Amino acid sequence: MDINKYLPKYKLNHRDLLDLSQLSGEEIFEILYAARAIKKRYLVGENSHALKGKTVALLFDNVSTRTRIAFELGIRQLGGDFLFLPKRETQLSRGESMKDTAAMLERYGISCVVLRGFLQAEMEKFVSHCTIPVINGISEGSHPLQVLSDLFTIWEAKGRLDNLKLTYIGDGNNVANSLIIGGSKVNMDVAIASPGGYSPAREVVERGMQYSNITITGDIDEAVKDADIVYTDVFISMNETDDEEKKRRLSRYRVTKEVMAKAKPDALFMHCMPVHRGEEVSEDVVDGPQSIVYTQAENRLHLNKAVLALLVRQ
Amino acid sequence: MDINKYLPKYKLNHRDLLDLSQLSGEEIFEILYAARAIKKRYLVGENSHALKGKTVALLFDNVSTRTRIAFELGIRQLGGDFLFLPKRETQLSRGESMKDTAAMLERYGISCVVLRGFLQAEMEKFVSHCTIPVINGISEGSHPLQVLSDLFTIWEAKGRLDNLKLTYIGDGNNVANSLIIGGSKVNMDVAIASPGGYSPAREVVERGMQYSNITITGDIDEAVKDADIVYTDVFISMNETDDEEKKRRLSRYRVTKEVMAKAKPDALFMHCMPVHRGEEVSEDVVDGPQSIVYTQAENRLHLNKAVLALLVRQ
Amino acid sequence: MDINKYLPKYKLNHRDLLDLSQLSGEEIFEILYAARAIKKRYLVGENSHALKGKTVALLFDNVSTRTRIAFELGIRQLGGDFLFLPKRETQLSRGESMKDTAAMLERYGISCVVLRGFLQAEMEKFVSHCTIPVINGISEGSHPLQVLSDLFTIWEAKGRLDNLKLTYIGDGNNVANSLIIGGSKVNMDVAIASPGGYSPAREVVERGMQYSNITITGDIDEAVKDADIVYTDVFISMNETDDEEKKRRLSRYRVTKEVMAKAKPDALFMHCMPVHRGEEVSEDVVDGPQSIVYTQAENRLHLNKAVLALLVRQ
Repeated sequence: MDINKYLPKYKLNHRDLLDLSQLSGEEIFEILYAARAIKKRYLVGENSHALKGKTVALLFDNVSTRTRIAFELGIRQLGGDFLFLPKRETQLSRGESMKDTAAMLERYGISCVVLRGFLQAEMEKFVSHCTIPVINGISEGSHPLQVLSDLFTIWEAKGRLDNLKLTYIGDGNNVANSLIIGGSKVNMDVAIASPGGYSPAREVVERGMQYSNITITGDIDEAVKDADIVYTDVFISMNETDDEEKKRRLSRYRVTKEVMAKAKPDALFMHCMPVHRGEEVSEDVVDGPQSIVYTQAENRLHLNKAVLALLVRQ
Repeated sequence: MDINKYLPKYKLNHRDLLDLSQLSGEEIFEILYAARAIKKRYLVGENSHALKGKTVALLFDNVSTRTRIAFELGIRQLGGDFLFLPKRETQLSRGESMKDTAAMLERYGISCVVLRGFLQAEMEKFVSHCTIPVINGISEGSHPLQVLSDLFTIWEAKGRLDNLKLTYIGDGNNVANSLIIGGSKVNMDVAIASPGGYSPAREVVERGMQYSNITITGDIDEAVKDADIVYTDVFISMNETDDEEKKRRLSRYRVTKEVMAKAKPDALFMHCMPVHRGEEVSEDVVDGPQSIVYTQAENRLHLNKAVLALLVRQ
Repeated sequence: MDINKYLPKYKLNHRDLLDLSQLSGEEIFEILYAARAIKKRYLVGENSHALKGKTVALLFDNVSTRTRIAFELGIRQLGGDFLFLPKRETQLSRGESMKDTAAMLERYGISCVVLRGFLQAEMEKFVSHCTIPVINGISEGSHPLQVLSDLFTIWEAKGRLDNLKLTYIGDGNNVANSLIIGGSKVNMDVAIASPGGYSPAREVVERGMQYSNITITGDIDEAVKDADIVYTDVFISMNETDDEEKKRRLSRYRVTKEVMAKAKPDALFMHCMPVHRGEEVSEDVVDGPQSIVYTQAENRLHLNKAVLALLVRQ
């Protein structure tokens, strides 16, 4: 049984997925419904053939474990092929423009491009020079696939998203930005605890406040009170160089058992990985009973397949 | 309908494709006919299965966008598989010889090897140690696939090749060499405008002169007069380090609207890409109505497939 | 005809293949029988589909020609897919733990992992955090697939393994270690000639002595007397930096025609490659009539397929 007949119920009126601010709450749920259908069928050994005869280009400018594996496996499971193109092995590293690269991939009949590790502005330039669906696999400002997968994981675990409180502790980075935008659009309250100077960008916070309660604070206790989800990420992101001062400033913004104890008793711990145990989170938390980090990572597979199926079939 | 029945009409009596000097004008046309047949069928969704059950090794020692993508896609479209082997990830980077590498690939049952970014002499050594067909994906001295694809593109656009005038402006590099050899073999006139010291090698020019009119000059106006095609390439090639003096010397050898105005009114602009807008060509030319650079790049796919189908099926 | 029906005769009661010390002599022969069946069928164009629908992850931290090609081809021939993951392109290069990487690959449904260029201790940690079969593609202490392939090659060439004498001349490295363990388990006598300070580790030698005669000496003549096989390897291994003093100390431990003349008249020369002609072996030996180095390399394909088929189908 092919599950394409299940997917037509879901609609995504976008060509690209560059940032969650593009999507309405309803559209986010369309993606989650599709991911649920795809995961359910996958677990009984069935796959959509949404990418049959199609090739997806993975144009990556930084290291990757989950994004790469989830796409490479997911594309094959959907019956397609991929081209893995690290930027440094292409002419982009010799000054070829995003414009020409986009035009080329279109001419070669590529059905979808995943851009990872490029600036949001470069991705937008790429999009403007081709008609191929383009997916943001991570940029300096956002990580939409990660947060869609996170919302899917929370939805599975809690049975709902609205009126949950998600608390993010640490650096106000691309993941924090996308949690604010994505979480607020599905009616979650989002609290961010960061040291001064490391809060998420003001325009992201203001956008999130249009949809739900967003709290930005330096006080971990205030942020974590009544939290259903406690989330953290590494102190130094991939687009940054090592920074001892930043690590020192963030060192207090660590998720420990004590922090978890201040959240709701059934709170879950999440992390987009890679985890640096003892740095942003203690070992007993990330490896403890409240942690769902591996399920979060696994769901990248199902979520990425849903996004591919929804974007490419249009 | 399988198009293998179309291909047997075309013949290429060579095991390898290392340099265009190997081929007669007639053989060049055999390749162009095959490319035309393959492209025509591709555009209606049909492909030859010339590589069914076969694996092509892509052994690359420099960055690549078009060569890599055109081969990876083309090999799959022909029903085959590829191994992508960057030299630095193989034992060649630890002193293994070309001889042993060639012997290994033969022992492993590889059906064809594309060598990119090696010296012509290394490629010849490789060829002497195996019976597998070997294709030059670019060397310091020539770029045969590029120029075959260019000839195919010109043939499509102009309906013929003989008695056309192709003018190349800029560095007398591997592409210039192959344009002289390939162009002259199909009866095109080839004019090269380069600053002193950057002309194509004397033996290449002399070889070209055996077949057609070759002009080597420092005078752009003379070169471009009556040109049907104006062609240029980057100032600094992949096998070279950055060189300010070279760029300064070449800076006047740039294709602008003024240069194009001195060619025939229906002249076409070509560039093997990557393009450095504002350096070797102005933006209004490369993005203007006379430019066929994207078609040129697309045709790499069809041309590469033709070469694979002709060499591997022997 | 599918050859899976041939394979069930062979049994390997292990989940992983990290070191030959895990295997009994009988189990080594199970692998060799399976390799023989797989090679025999391959040569008439038949393949097992032991990996149909399965994906093998190749997680590599150093350069590779034979291991990579033999696995990539072999996996496809067995009907499976692979993920090629150079460590530096994954989050392992940004501090992600082996534990989390292992857990991820398991969650993503990977059927087997080949680890190459990691420390034996890291491989053991990896194994302890997942239930996927793990294969050692080379570590600082052992190279089990190479030596299994070597034993298979000797068995093909000599018709038996027991009571043969294998002499290894040179650095007491991972290959020497595995030759001692693997050779002794199948009742070969193993002699190692190395300069002082470059002998194999004492515990490896002692383990080998439990099964057969192991000679460790500085005297090449003593080691090579009555040898059926003369084996050598490069002076500087992949996990080492260049070391002039080591090369100087090893320079006398070179396999030349004079050395071969002191072995049995029908002695064979072996080398796991890459070969540095004129360094650890003279050109006339490695390219001479006693050399079986290319057959040795080819057999990596058949042996790797046997190991995959035996481990993954359990």
